[in-house]
Amino acid sequence: MAAVLRVSINPNVLANKMSRSNPSRPSRTTMAIMSQDHPYWASVHAEIEVHLKQHILVRPPLSVFEPMHHLVFSAPPSPGPALCVAACELVGGHRDQAIAAAAALHLMHAAAVIHEQLLSTDRLKTKPKPRPMVHSPGIELLTGDGMFAFGYELLAKSMDPAQNNSDRILRVIVEMTRAMGSQGMVDGQYHEILMLCKQSRYYKYVCEKKEGGLHACGAACGAILGGASEEEIERLRRYGLCVGVMIAFSNRVEEGNEMETTEVVKELRSLALKELEFFHEGKAEAISSFFIS
Amino acid sequence: MAAVLRVSINPNVLANKMSRSNPSRPSRTTMAIMSQDHPYWASVHAEIEVHLKQHILVRPPLSVFEPMHHLVFSAPPSPGPALCVAACELVGGHRDQAIAAAAALHLMHAAAVIHEQLLSTDRLKTKPKPRPMVHSPGIELLTGDGMFAFGYELLAKSMDPAQNNSDRILRVIVEMTRAMGSQGMVDGQYHEILMLCKQSRYYKYVCEKKEGGLHACGAACGAILGGASEEEIERLRRYGLCVGVMIAFSNRVEEGNEMETTEVVKELRSLALKELEFFHEGKAEAISSFFIS
Repeated sequence: MAAVLRVSINPNVLANKMSRSNPSRPSRTTMAIMSQDHPYWASVHAEIEVHLKQHILVRPPLSVFEPMHHLVFSAPPSPGPALCVAACELVGGHRDQAIAAAAALHLMHAAAVIHEQLLSTDRLKTKPKPRPMVHSPGIELLTGDGMFAFGYELLAKSMDPAQNNSDRILRVIVEMTRAMGSQGMVDGQYHEILMLCKQSRYYKYVCEKKEGGLHACGAACGAILGGASEEEIERLRRYGLCVGVMIAFSNRVEEGNEMETTEVVKELRSLALKELEFFHEGKAEAISSFFIS
Repeated sequence: MAAVLRVSINPNVLANKMSRSNPSRPSRTTMAIMSQDHPYWASVHAEIEVHLKQHILVRPPLSVFEPMHHLVFSAPPSPGPALCVAACELVGGHRDQAIAAAAALHLMHAAAVIHEQLLSTDRLKTKPKPRPMVHSPGIELLTGDGMFAFGYELLAKSMDPAQNNSDRILRVIVEMTRAMGSQGMVDGQYHEILMLCKQSRYYKYVCEKKEGGLHACGAACGAILGGASEEEIERLRRYGLCVGVMIAFSNRVEEGNEMETTEVVKELRSLALKELEFFHEGKAEAISSFFIS
């Protein structure tokens, strides 16, 4: 089921880049990969946010829901949820069919970030500027648990007898549990806390399990909900994997030595776009606008 | 949807009991409530364990799956999962229809225990003897996350086209997310870490949200999967709530002053058994064997 990314990247180059990263300045590479200012992505992000705001209210007990509201909406942005909507539309589905799954994916991404930041303060030094901790670690741990649960709840509640979509939603739930669980995000985070990611051969593995897995899941789930064929699902899964790993690389590498980074990104970009060739060019225009040409 | 337990318990008595509890010795009250040695419960527990052992293997990467295996099978026993199977059988369902949900509930109960034990070591003093921590806090945090995800995966994968059970499974997923999330287990745990449970008026609230919610969920999910009517589901939910709160009380109160504890337990027992009167006596025999007569 899991897509495997076959890219010939020199791991030593990447490990070096990572260890010398300067997280306080935005990476130019990130900006070259994608444009969230593009009208298509802006509209998708706006709809996901509306859906989240409708469902995540500050209500009693405030001690529970205030931290959740804050942590959901202050999470670092991830293009994974938007990719879910774009994949659904690419295969002929309607945006509404994928919004709950996209919102669920944002919740899970945000919860994973919270739990990851609890693991070690040292490790945060090699990451993009960490979010300052507003709540106690205990509250953040429990809020993360609540957010994981609420993600699955949003998804399960999106069952609609008129759409007869129960089987698709169950399949999407399995996809998300695998992307977020011990074979996916958790596996990547394990390797990070064991510091294995400092070893170059594990660096790509961690990127594939974390950001790669999240984006692969987003694209595959959108495709499933939009009624895609198995081949379409797997192509979009690989597209998402490339996009996610690109984002991971570009968020972590330093600004200097951009030439090597650019090479890696270029290779991933080419692999990603190759997957889109399978689809009708006109239809793939929106999802391929992920990249600035 | 959520059942509300209306029992006239003197909260001051309970708060006093709790603060003076002696967690190192087993409570005689617990033993008076239920008998897991009863052949019916023993067979249910054995089947749930077999299902878990089939699905939770020690496999590569060992750094991920060894802690999960250990923490799933060393978790303190909870009757909640068994109640799920018993409720399914009571309403005419087959045991197989509820085993995956029961196993999922055990995973979630075990994950909640792990995360709760990470929150504060101080608080553990008022609890039953804490499990010694074998793994680092980071590994335990992530293993808990992996177990929550795997619980939902087991559940979603139990979809069976031959049984046409997708809608029931989605409903059960919503039940579990509510029992484990910010309106359930997490809410109870929040109140505990904020030490509100030391205030007598919050003590019953915490018991209802945690152990009460878990057992109410178990019984309601088993009923749903067994094809129960709405009235049967709600009666079994209230039965589970009473059983769970009884277990919480009896686990936390001290051995001395047993008379007051016995009164509370008696009242809850009577409420629980009242719910079972709705069902055919012969059919309810198994589930009512929860109590030693």
